[in-house]
Amino acid sequence: MKIDILTLFPDMFKGVFESSILKRAQDVGAFSYNLIDFRDFTTDKHNKVDDYPYGGGAGMVLKPQPIFDAVEHLIDQHESKPRVVLMCPQGETFTQRKAEELAKEDHLIFICGHYEGYDERIREHIVTDEISIGDYVLTGGELGAMVVTDSIIRLQSDVLGNNESATLDSFSTNLLEHPHYTRPNDFRGMTVPEVLTSGNHQKIEEWRKYESLKRTYSRRPDLFEGLELDQKELDMLDEIKRNDVARDK
Amino acid sequence: MKIDILTLFPDMFKGVFESSILKRAQDVGAFSYNLIDFRDFTTDKHNKVDDYPYGGGAGMVLKPQPIFDAVEHLIDQHESKPRVVLMCPQGETFTQRKAEELAKEDHLIFICGHYEGYDERIREHIVTDEISIGDYVLTGGELGAMVVTDSIIRLQSDVLGNNESATLDSFSTNLLEHPHYTRPNDFRGMTVPEVLTSGNHQKIEEWRKYESLKRTYSRRPDLFEGLELDQKELDMLDEIKRNDVARDK
Repeated sequence: MKIDILTLFPDMFKGVFESSILKRAQDVGAFSYNLIDFRDFTTDKHNKVDDYPYGGGAGMVLKPQPIFDAVEHLIDQHESKPRVVLMCPQGETFTQRKAEELAKEDHLIFICGHYEGYDERIREHIVTDEISIGDYVLTGGELGAMVVTDSIIRLQSDVLGNNESATLDSFSTNLLEHPHYTRPNDFRGMTVPEVLTSGNHQKIEEWRKYESLKRTYSRRPDLFEGLELDQKELDMLDEIKRNDVARDK
Repeated sequence: MKIDILTLFPDMFKGVFESSILKRAQDVGAFSYNLIDFRDFTTDKHNKVDDYPYGGGAGMVLKPQPIFDAVEHLIDQHESKPRVVLMCPQGETFTQRKAEELAKEDHLIFICGHYEGYDERIREHIVTDEISIGDYVLTGGELGAMVVTDSIIRLQSDVLGNNESATLDSFSTNLLEHPHYTRPNDFRGMTVPEVLTSGNHQKIEEWRKYESLKRTYSRRPDLFEGLELDQKELDMLDEIKRNDVARDK
């Protein structure tokens, strides 16, 4: 997958994009990226990317011209039409489902604003997707673009090894993960639940399923919505509810 | 605010932490950080930070010892007791409210795992907060720690200038922002709504409020929950509903 990123702060990306899984993805040919400072596409002599808002008010607004020209320049280099993703608080909330959808594309363009609004004509005429990574205020779209990139590149084939793919599946099963334990069995007097060292695999699986349901029920009951539990899981959930687990968060 | 980050990938952070607002926050003395590779706290000869899970299964689990020792080392250097934040998919979903809460602290420690589970004893005995930045799978906690850091450091006094603070308030007012426009009035035949160039400030404010309500209604109606609208806003919302705005997302 090819990812182009329009940003005024290209230096922010290297540390993240040249480490760990994103580095390996480039090594195996599953990912390449291009950082474009859209200030390079300004046509006025002061290289201004923003201007005052029509109608007054504080804050600056990113001008349409540099971003239109930069996106069109990138699209002209390719035969297929890429999705153009605007990172912004008004966008669709990013989820694993959206990651899986975007992961199927060959080419994406991200537009990252930085403590400024976007001229509405950018949204209306060149953007195909508006994404917010969550309900909090960030200084710019750069961290959001890194988050989305990481989540979709790790879904490309050949990027993850077996050890990595297995553990972090909270949002692919829609249940929160059960607790994990590793050596030592006794760490400063804190011991591992006996079932995990029993060697009884059926009991271990049952314990894990129960703990996973319990954690989901107590912390994120919203995740049960739209989830189809089997009869055994429903029985476990009834037992969890009877035991009146405190909703700790 | 002092932020310590435990990570196996310290190189990921520099580009983000040495740019833009986070750089300026350091210049004005509002932010300092320390990257700790917790592999430096391992006591075995192979410097292993992880081990196989008790009970079997794929994936590796971060051992308690290096993380306990690293956190205790950091806490010993300070008089006050810091919050210890674990970045993980099982955590509380991060919001602007949580950012405002954490922004009041003097010292935070973030623990970032990387495509591995955490030994449960870490959660139970040294962590005060578990945070997830959203319902998607990331390779590690590093991007989450950067996101949380950015959101809370920009709330420190003296960090933002006036121009920056004004625009990005989607999640402080709980309504999505109205559209913004800047020069030119006519860009390739796409023109700015007339009201914004009318000079009639009352009409401009009404247009902005209406558009803000309309965008929130069509894209994120969940944001209205718990929000107290005044009579004028309620009337506008009724009008928006009567006009049967398509919920575009």
